[in-house]
Amino acid sequence: MKRIDSTKNEQIKKWKKLHKKKDREKAGQFIVEGFHLVEEVLKSDIELQVLLLTEEFVLPVDWNVDTGKIILTTDSVMKEVCETESPQGIAAVCILPQKTMLPYQAGRYLLLDRIQDPGNMGTLIRTADAVGLDGVILEKGSADIYNSKVIRASQGSVFHLPIVKGDLKESIQQFKKAGVPIFGTALEGASTYTAMEPQETFALILGNEGEGVASGLLNLTDQNLYIPIHGQAESLNVTVAAGILLYYLRAN
Amino acid sequence: MKRIDSTKNEQIKKWKKLHKKKDREKAGQFIVEGFHLVEEVLKSDIELQVLLLTEEFVLPVDWNVDTGKIILTTDSVMKEVCETESPQGIAAVCILPQKTMLPYQAGRYLLLDRIQDPGNMGTLIRTADAVGLDGVILEKGSADIYNSKVIRASQGSVFHLPIVKGDLKESIQQFKKAGVPIFGTALEGASTYTAMEPQETFALILGNEGEGVASGLLNLTDQNLYIPIHGQAESLNVTVAAGILLYYLRAN
Repeated sequence: MKRIDSTKNEQIKKWKKLHKKKDREKAGQFIVEGFHLVEEVLKSDIELQVLLLTEEFVLPVDWNVDTGKIILTTDSVMKEVCETESPQGIAAVCILPQKTMLPYQAGRYLLLDRIQDPGNMGTLIRTADAVGLDGVILEKGSADIYNSKVIRASQGSVFHLPIVKGDLKESIQQFKKAGVPIFGTALEGASTYTAMEPQETFALILGNEGEGVASGLLNLTDQNLYIPIHGQAESLNVTVAAGILLYYLRAN
Repeated sequence: MKRIDSTKNEQIKKWKKLHKKKDREKAGQFIVEGFHLVEEVLKSDIELQVLLLTEEFVLPVDWNVDTGKIILTTDSVMKEVCETESPQGIAAVCILPQKTMLPYQAGRYLLLDRIQDPGNMGTLIRTADAVGLDGVILEKGSADIYNSKVIRASQGSVFHLPIVKGDLKESIQQFKKAGVPIFGTALEGASTYTAMEPQETFALILGNEGEGVASGLLNLTDQNLYIPIHGQAESLNVTVAAGILLYYLRAN
């Protein structure tokens, strides 16, 4: 098996750059850190290119990884490549998937309007996966799903369901043509979510942490929903709001 | 008004230490960073001891702060004291409140069993506030609520509702005596949450990010609840689970 022992190795320098979106897109690669997430990659359609392991790492016997793809390395090289402060001795360099299209048809969808925080983005995708959605559409200006923090917060759910970039105005029009009701979320001028019945098919829009869903989108929805605030908090975290609304709309 | 211009000032060194729990408890103080959170302190019963401002910071006219409590400082001193990377030019040193007791009576409560992550802890408290709970009880080993990250993620909700430390076994017994039903949360051996009717009064237990609620507590509950997972995710983030269950149990 190949080995890399120096943090100054050219490959290592390149992989380290994969923590930046621009460099991920240039290289057509992204990096996945830690046992659980690499396992999720192996279970998915994502193509693993290099499996970087420290010598102490014991590969599970049921992981069928082509040994030609394995590179052994040291703790300090692993630390150089990984973003996590105490890497687990395993990381994978993967091929950035081709951009896919989502079919606009009956189903359950989450539309995200410029979610900024990578932790929120990952948790939203984990929640979308848990509730069994058919896809997630991201407006331009949303956190990149191949950011390590997003992948980590999603606990691998980024590899489980279709996630596409799209113009949300265009998506709303397409869903409307397909007869899928569109629900926005807003703190004002909206109905309490429980006034709406659970739905067989829907697209729910959640918005930017500071600004919420853009008014230009809220004007296009069938109904805008509101989660009542009973205490002194001004609002809910966007991931918590997503969980409440998605589980309610799906009827558990 | 007083001024501090040096990052080596003794007071500054002491306040900087307030980011550690041990030092907060020793000093009986904690620190709050940023405009919105200081505003929340002023609206609450928390006693503000020192208001640290950079010269550029314009204090709102309706903030009645005793000028004897104001200390003007520089951007670099502010950066030294604050944990946030780009401080807003305002921070407050506050008195750590006396430990309070929660009356065990009819109401809605959240019991947290060793929540570790400060972001999760803050978001749980923000959610508890939003849903209008009467109090939160924290098992030993939970993140400290006067940690800056917890305060920030709570968006000031830590100042809005009673939050006490307690032995959860003892709390469960007390709630039972008061006729408050206790719901645990578990991934196995539990009922789907929608099988339970919304409740006028309840105590809901959520647990540690990795381990969930301790089995010793789950054995003491009236009912353990489960949120169905329809996709490939293994579980939900604890804050998302809290939002779904609390809003369901309260019936929005």
